[in-house]
Amino acid sequence: MVGAGQLARMTHQAAVDLDIELVVLAASDEDSAVVGGAPYRLGSVASLADLEAVASAADVVTFDHELVPTENLVKLRRIGYRLEPTPSALRLAQDKLEARHVLSTAGFPTPAFESISSISDAMAFTSEHGWPIVLKSRRGGYDGRGVHVVDNPGQLASLLKGNPDEEAVWLAEEFVDITAELSVLIARTPAGRSVVYPAVETFQREGICRYLTMPATQPLRILEQAGQMAGSIAGTIGATGMLAVEMFVTTGNDLLVNELALRPHNSGHATIEACVTSQFHQHLRAVLDWPLGSTSMRSNAAATVNLIGEMHELDIAARLPQALAIPGVHVHLYAKTPRPGRKFGHITVLDDSASGALETAKAAAELITKPR
Amino acid sequence: MVGAGQLARMTHQAAVDLDIELVVLAASDEDSAVVGGAPYRLGSVASLADLEAVASAADVVTFDHELVPTENLVKLRRIGYRLEPTPSALRLAQDKLEARHVLSTAGFPTPAFESISSISDAMAFTSEHGWPIVLKSRRGGYDGRGVHVVDNPGQLASLLKGNPDEEAVWLAEEFVDITAELSVLIARTPAGRSVVYPAVETFQREGICRYLTMPATQPLRILEQAGQMAGSIAGTIGATGMLAVEMFVTTGNDLLVNELALRPHNSGHATIEACVTSQFHQHLRAVLDWPLGSTSMRSNAAATVNLIGEMHELDIAARLPQALAIPGVHVHLYAKTPRPGRKFGHITVLDDSASGALETAKAAAELITKPR
Repeated sequence: MVGAGQLARMTHQAAVDLDIELVVLAASDEDSAVVGGAPYRLGSVASLADLEAVASAADVVTFDHELVPTENLVKLRRIGYRLEPTPSALRLAQDKLEARHVLSTAGFPTPAFESISSISDAMAFTSEHGWPIVLKSRRGGYDGRGVHVVDNPGQLASLLKGNPDEEAVWLAEEFVDITAELSVLIARTPAGRSVVYPAVETFQREGICRYLTMPATQPLRILEQAGQMAGSIAGTIGATGMLAVEMFVTTGNDLLVNELALRPHNSGHATIEACVTSQFHQHLRAVLDWPLGSTSMRSNAAATVNLIGEMHELDIAARLPQALAIPGVHVHLYAKTPRPGRKFGHITVLDDSASGALETAKAAAELITKPR
Repeated sequence: MVGAGQLARMTHQAAVDLDIELVVLAASDEDSAVVGGAPYRLGSVASLADLEAVASAADVVTFDHELVPTENLVKLRRIGYRLEPTPSALRLAQDKLEARHVLSTAGFPTPAFESISSISDAMAFTSEHGWPIVLKSRRGGYDGRGVHVVDNPGQLASLLKGNPDEEAVWLAEEFVDITAELSVLIARTPAGRSVVYPAVETFQREGICRYLTMPATQPLRILEQAGQMAGSIAGTIGATGMLAVEMFVTTGNDLLVNELALRPHNSGHATIEACVTSQFHQHLRAVLDWPLGSTSMRSNAAATVNLIGEMHELDIAARLPQALAIPGVHVHLYAKTPRPGRKFGHITVLDDSASGALETAKAAAELITKPR
């Protein structure tokens, strides 16, 4: 597995169950998965040699993040290594503009979008779609970084200023009035078998997912449509392993595809406790082309609250036992130093209702993130 | 954690969730927990220096097995290390005769027993209790090793021959007609708080637990009595961490205490999937004197089947995906080479009924242990 963050950490925990040797390519021996005990090699995703050092001993190469230079992926593939997902699928998680092109060409509904390489491009887009518009970095953005809601030409100019126009580095998008955001998790094997999880409803603040409920509390018609759309997208793009399809539910109750992640995803952490097969076990099974597991839920509802660093100092060691005193609280820590805006863990609670699960999980998260 | 077998391996997986650094004392870097990624030190439980090398960096010392020389435990404790369970509690898992004395003195029902250091001792015991009798090694037996059902004086003589009579090395026990064997898992903190899991029914063959169901399908009165008895025993012996109390249900529907294990236990593996809090998370919480977690089940019933090596050669790599194709099957492998009679993994299934769960788990286990 290329990358050694919390997704690799939790994939390693699943790999131990099945006695699968998951070797991670880590930037540091303090990376989350390394601290969690995953066998590792130190190296950089920018180095083909480092990537090969991990790949050469592996049956399959897979990913904890998509920030790997495309040319290195293509070279690994050409050498003959088995990459799941494949470079052609993975690039859709790397390049938001490319993903939008592929999805809209295939007929999937997305917000109106345009590639932007100059202020005049952007002004042309606003004249058609009005203000505000959403400007997104074509590559590399996550957790709200690289996403801007732009209200007027002045903001637009200051954002685009300093960006060389050599290539279209921005994706402009119409601002859509939405009532909810969904994430549909699906696993797909190289042979094309797939299973879909109950849709998750995600709740963002400042571009970071703060909490989520499973299943989403949306009309059944929308949930069915979301599941079908995710399955269809997985096949269209040739996804393998876990795929998360993030969607908007508009005020008109239409679904629009927002972004793709081709890996286990933050929105799927509730599956560890809430589903028969966790997304981490499922990812391993999918990339190895093994039979996939049941995605059924073990409870009526579940909620996950992300633990996110604050401006104030935390005292996790003192708070953790207090949080565990709340019945039904499952804490997952990532061995990451909390910094403002940085996810360092999550809490999952199962309950009969999503609101009950969320209330309990929030209470535990608030305890852990209280000022020292 | 002293010891690095599968119990340490699964405790490490739980420790990763809570970002607890679980360092194991391992005899080899091929030990199950080491392969699973637990930080480790190589050493022997017979060496006080090796034990101290692990203990000195730890807040608490706990155990994956009880085969540690008592004098070393006592010395560690005297030096000031915090051992959970304490040496005085742990010796009851080390010494079956001592356990019986303590339990029967405290008024808990056990099979009639006597310490045996000669054939004449044994003959005196049989004249009171009849044949057969059960002879057990006082120390060190597990998985049926060191337990013998003796039918006649000839067998008795051949067993006792060659055993020096310097101390009573055998525990003689009346042969009890039983209808079921139960294991009651309980967690207790140093402060004396405790929680009890639903009783488990275990099924042995050749002295090894082959499978188990949770909850036990015994009359409610017996289950309640078993839970109360386990709780009372935990307090009486000052157990800390997980305690497994193995019990017989006699043909007269009486409960007799058989053996004690002061650690996570093979009979508790179903708790990983079937309970809100697994026995491994619970053990960590208990020995750290943290709040204990809910022991409620997430399904009506669960079954675990142990994967045990056979005389024939296995092909786990080929069979594992086939077993995973059976819906609802959870496989746990211990990174142990299968040898005849050696547990190398287990399978858990949750279901509405114990029989349904057991049928599915057995089917998966039979697949994995089929001849190559």
